[in-house]
Amino acid sequence: MSDTRLDGFLDGRLRIAQPARGYRAGADAVMLAAACPARAGQAVLELGCGAGTASLCLGWRIPGLILTGLERQAAYADLARANATANGIALDVLTGDLADPPPALRAALFDHVLMNPPFFLGGTPAPDPGRAGARREETPLALWIDAGLRRLRPGGWLVVIQRADRLDGVMAALQGRAGGVTILPIAARVGHPAGRVLVAARKGARSPLRLLAPLITHAAPVHGRDGEDLTVTAQAILRQGAPIDLGIAKVP
Amino acid sequence: MSDTRLDGFLDGRLRIAQPARGYRAGADAVMLAAACPARAGQAVLELGCGAGTASLCLGWRIPGLILTGLERQAAYADLARANATANGIALDVLTGDLADPPPALRAALFDHVLMNPPFFLGGTPAPDPGRAGARREETPLALWIDAGLRRLRPGGWLVVIQRADRLDGVMAALQGRAGGVTILPIAARVGHPAGRVLVAARKGARSPLRLLAPLITHAAPVHGRDGEDLTVTAQAILRQGAPIDLGIAKVP
Repeated sequence: MSDTRLDGFLDGRLRIAQPARGYRAGADAVMLAAACPARAGQAVLELGCGAGTASLCLGWRIPGLILTGLERQAAYADLARANATANGIALDVLTGDLADPPPALRAALFDHVLMNPPFFLGGTPAPDPGRAGARREETPLALWIDAGLRRLRPGGWLVVIQRADRLDGVMAALQGRAGGVTILPIAARVGHPAGRVLVAARKGARSPLRLLAPLITHAAPVHGRDGEDLTVTAQAILRQGAPIDLGIAKVP
Repeated sequence: MSDTRLDGFLDGRLRIAQPARGYRAGADAVMLAAACPARAGQAVLELGCGAGTASLCLGWRIPGLILTGLERQAAYADLARANATANGIALDVLTGDLADPPPALRAALFDHVLMNPPFFLGGTPAPDPGRAGARREETPLALWIDAGLRRLRPGGWLVVIQRADRLDGVMAALQGRAGGVTILPIAARVGHPAGRVLVAARKGARSPLRLLAPLITHAAPVHGRDGEDLTVTAQAILRQGAPIDLGIAKVP
């Protein structure tokens, strides 16, 4: 991909080449990586890894992981490979569609699967924003989660970040197939509705759902103060690469 | 029911006779009533009204409602009738099972349906707390919500309070039948996972889900201060009968 720019993540600890135009990973990818409860030696798959931001943030935080990314668009997959090399993190990037994964992937099971499914799965907004549009979006999100669950070993963790208003779609797709569902609302400010949700779920588990206290990303605006207003927690995650503790280490 | 005691609600504004032993309504019923977006002149049904606490709290807050309660246990239904009379609030209590509602109810549609389904629907805990137990509980919760949706006019609101770990069951039962799903997590303290959820959903609507900022019921413990530590918001709801604003007036 010729027209790229270099974006710093984790306060410049990672430098990721991304397309100058089109989809670029941001805070969502970093938070997704922060929430993955992987331990050294485990195998992690990212579905739709794009230029590799989430997988590389995770690899930076937890050395010794076996990282695999699946990306449909060859140009993004190439960027992800180059970004992995440039940052000195091993990431095996496969080019392929999650609906019809390459044979190498179909033969493998992972301890963790990460995903940040695109929010507008239909591409351009549906001409009819009602029934048909909702359906067109719904099937693909379910398909992402289905693909992720298929690639997990029993007891493995799926972690997904998604717009908060798609929580119903995420939960419907997990229904009966994963337990220990842990929902972290992410809100811009105290008292605001969640804009994003991080959802973790354990394949085949039956432990009860948990709805955590929200992660607040921005502090109250302070009169006369310019610039940065990230909360201390958000700064630790986005700047220092701190983990997000979903408390799932204890989930049976 | 001979062995009853008189409990004060809304700072004594309501006095409700409840069984001295067995299920007694508490803060959940008051919060359920506070979240109902009814307006004077509208018809409201409470499924499983017990001794009538939620319906009577609602009737106290919004005069001019047409209130109906359905209660399976005759002794509770009798208490609800007596409590309505004693508090001067009109409440029509039907004795019957929500799975097989009385003909008078089957012929009626309501603007709002409230419910606080029992948390342990199987009665005694299942001997096998795994698969079978989970299934035994699941079907009845879905049945409560199904019964509620059937009694709503199109565009009417269902409001349910439930243990937070049953959010998946609530959402699965609403799937495809109601929209504008609005989730209010209720947590004991800031930073704690939700213990309860209030879920409102509009029959037949397709508006997106909203996950609200949590309602916090208890303030941080203050060293050396005894007694009451309800937050100001919780005090307003539980003592003064203030409404809980789910922001659903704007949901299309």
